[in-house]
Amino acid sequence: MPRPIVSPEIDGLIQQLAKLPGLGPRSARRAVLHLLKKGPSVMEPLARALSETAATIRSCSICGNLDSNDPCHICTDPRRDPAIICVVEDVSDLWALERTAFKGRYHILGGVLSALDGVGPEDLNIASLIERAGLPETQEMILAMNATVDGQTTAHYITDRLHNTGVKVTRLAHGVPVGGELDYLDDGTLSAAMNARLPF
Amino acid sequence: MPRPIVSPEIDGLIQQLAKLPGLGPRSARRAVLHLLKKGPSVMEPLARALSETAATIRSCSICGNLDSNDPCHICTDPRRDPAIICVVEDVSDLWALERTAFKGRYHILGGVLSALDGVGPEDLNIASLIERAGLPETQEMILAMNATVDGQTTAHYITDRLHNTGVKVTRLAHGVPVGGELDYLDDGTLSAAMNARLPF
Repeated sequence: MPRPIVSPEIDGLIQQLAKLPGLGPRSARRAVLHLLKKGPSVMEPLARALSETAATIRSCSICGNLDSNDPCHICTDPRRDPAIICVVEDVSDLWALERTAFKGRYHILGGVLSALDGVGPEDLNIASLIERAGLPETQEMILAMNATVDGQTTAHYITDRLHNTGVKVTRLAHGVPVGGELDYLDDGTLSAAMNARLPF
Repeated sequence: MPRPIVSPEIDGLIQQLAKLPGLGPRSARRAVLHLLKKGPSVMEPLARALSETAATIRSCSICGNLDSNDPCHICTDPRRDPAIICVVEDVSDLWALERTAFKGRYHILGGVLSALDGVGPEDLNIASLIERAGLPETQEMILAMNATVDGQTTAHYITDRLHNTGVKVTRLAHGVPVGGELDYLDDGTLSAAMNARLPF
């Protein structure tokens, strides 16, 4: 921009918010204007929440989850079954699966194998996964990678690595989304749903 | 949600961000996850920017602009022409007009007249506008309200109030947007552009 149209404080705040995913310069301006109109009673708690979160949140040394405790509240929860470990790409996938009734524990890879992006097994939390597979309580690993090429390549690689551990390896079911219309479904999903048909 | 899936710090941050315009629960989760991955080096400056802005920004007592100084940097800038005052609904309109080459000053109404929402003249910064119209340096007022029914009602009301002040009252031109295609334009704009045609 040719000249500062707002005070440097506001401009700095807009530029920082504009870097968040889902927000561009225009929506960052709208958000900042909203905050300015609400005033310190809204901005101060947000600033405090940010500092507190920045100060307390760390990565769980067992599963890689983000939490204020290490090990995280899922790894230390005695009601969660340590026999079943759900392996996911990212914390966002853990958050998504936590909205299901899953009561096992998790392992976060921190990404997927990708020849294109130069991501190899040593860049992911795979060594610690193999280690957890060797623990006496571990019985099943659910590979819940995204249904992308890289995700499925990673799942195949992990299946190979887990081959001799005696741990049962499963994957999420493919099929018709609940509430979805067949007409709008891609052919691959529809074929998978047909092949995996169940007695009514 | 039936149970906390994330630590209370993260959850609180998500809920506060989800209240911003343009962000819902899902995009707030994405934004928070992005912040958590970037860590304190990104979160701390954002928290600081928020507190500093909350502490320093106030409303300009002359024009209603939001700035760290009162009067604001536009009202005190000697290079800006005090003879021309652009009247806008909101600070966001001022920010938009500051991207043009306009070199006059502003007056922010803080809304528009609305019988439906019960907004009357006394709820807007109209008294101070009339006062500014009476100052010897004021020569022109540009009514840059939105081209909505309420915006235009407000413009008409202000025109009436300014009738006897001797100040020239103007409005923004209607017409074809620069880069716009005639075929996609609404009929009202197209008619206005035709009626306001200029020699080539």
